[in-house]
Amino acid sequence: MRTYKMTIIYDGTRYQGWQRQKNTDQTIQGILEASIGKIAGYPVEVNGSGRTDGGVHAKGQTASITLSGRVDETTFREELNKILPEDIRVKEMLLVKNGFHARQNAKGKRYEYFIDTREKPDVFARKYCCHYPYGLNIAAMEEAAGYLIGKHDFSGFTDKKDEKSTIRTIYDIIIEKQDSRIRIEYYGTGFLYHMVRILTGTLLEVGTGEKKPDEAISILEAGKREYAGFLAPARGLFLKEVYYT
Amino acid sequence: MRTYKMTIIYDGTRYQGWQRQKNTDQTIQGILEASIGKIAGYPVEVNGSGRTDGGVHAKGQTASITLSGRVDETTFREELNKILPEDIRVKEMLLVKNGFHARQNAKGKRYEYFIDTREKPDVFARKYCCHYPYGLNIAAMEEAAGYLIGKHDFSGFTDKKDEKSTIRTIYDIIIEKQDSRIRIEYYGTGFLYHMVRILTGTLLEVGTGEKKPDEAISILEAGKREYAGFLAPARGLFLKEVYYT
Repeated sequence: MRTYKMTIIYDGTRYQGWQRQKNTDQTIQGILEASIGKIAGYPVEVNGSGRTDGGVHAKGQTASITLSGRVDETTFREELNKILPEDIRVKEMLLVKNGFHARQNAKGKRYEYFIDTREKPDVFARKYCCHYPYGLNIAAMEEAAGYLIGKHDFSGFTDKKDEKSTIRTIYDIIIEKQDSRIRIEYYGTGFLYHMVRILTGTLLEVGTGEKKPDEAISILEAGKREYAGFLAPARGLFLKEVYYT
Repeated sequence: MRTYKMTIIYDGTRYQGWQRQKNTDQTIQGILEASIGKIAGYPVEVNGSGRTDGGVHAKGQTASITLSGRVDETTFREELNKILPEDIRVKEMLLVKNGFHARQNAKGKRYEYFIDTREKPDVFARKYCCHYPYGLNIAAMEEAAGYLIGKHDFSGFTDKKDEKSTIRTIYDIIIEKQDSRIRIEYYGTGFLYHMVRILTGTLLEVGTGEKKPDEAISILEAGKREYAGFLAPARGLFLKEVYYT
């Protein structure tokens, strides 16, 4: 038995998200398991670092698999990329120590969110950003982001209340203007269900003046989802990197 | 009766090309005519500057339409964009002198073609470039491009032989390296069926050394399609601008 770590890129547009579902082959995990099973010759479970929602993309999702023995990683990865659809690519495959688990061993994650601020949406980037042409005050957004960085109970920033713990640490939020788009990067220990998209919706509402920057503090304190901003669309979100050490 | 000129952006991925077909709504012209007819309240013919093949994109296709009277261009365009699919956008609508025809009055066109030279294709750009990771000698490609610039009989660079004339003038071909991609821009009076894609396939074969740069001259002289390079895929091609003055 040998454990391998995979780094996976995908365009989430066509998919119902990462997590395998019973009656559909429209999930990333489902397609990876079917394809890896075909090459291995026996069923293989693919354990992702976490679930991504339908429509969310990844530049560096990670997953662990256990194979019955040693394989040549390069050959295996190339064979796999041949049968995967072109919007899912395995970028890297590494032999890791037995028992490695992509979710349980993850130490941190980095996400990025892209906002198209042009008056008219960019036709060719439309699946990879959220169109939001309402004039954004970046300084106000940065002030709000400052209140969100740190170890907090983020229960006001999730749409699922049954997590064991809603405490997470955000190490950094970087807001960067790039010509006609804005990139927001989130780096932290981990993120709750919908958390990055609700953080983004909240920062956007601060950017337009609909919310004051220090409302970020009261949302954290109250822990009420309805105080936070809208759920920013999935299409603008990318899982960029998962950290293990 | 009033004539208007429209500038149109589209992502050609989902479509069978510009030209209206009998039993499909999967053409850009067909969708524009149906949508404009809905707003005008009567059938309107949309005359494009030229046809683009299935899968080819446009950043600045132009078309002329004739409406029964004067309309407010901004309102009309905004109403139209509301009912058009999100991969077709009318960027500009201008009142022009009666009788203006987007194809007949066109004086020149600019196309661009994008080549992804990375070893592994860029998952998020895959619909907007041709993946060609074979090592390209740009200087050789520029030499070949130099032979193609000018007024020539381009019958070796088309897949359709029944044009009235196969003589065209290419004003310029610019080959530009941008990080991991190459952009080739073609500017000329007009281009024959498949001409930009065959020119690109030929330049790519010069880039890999499969063809010598001066074979461009013999292809022009012989006028034989089979001497030219492969038909580069539609997905890398953009109609960038159409010139009228």
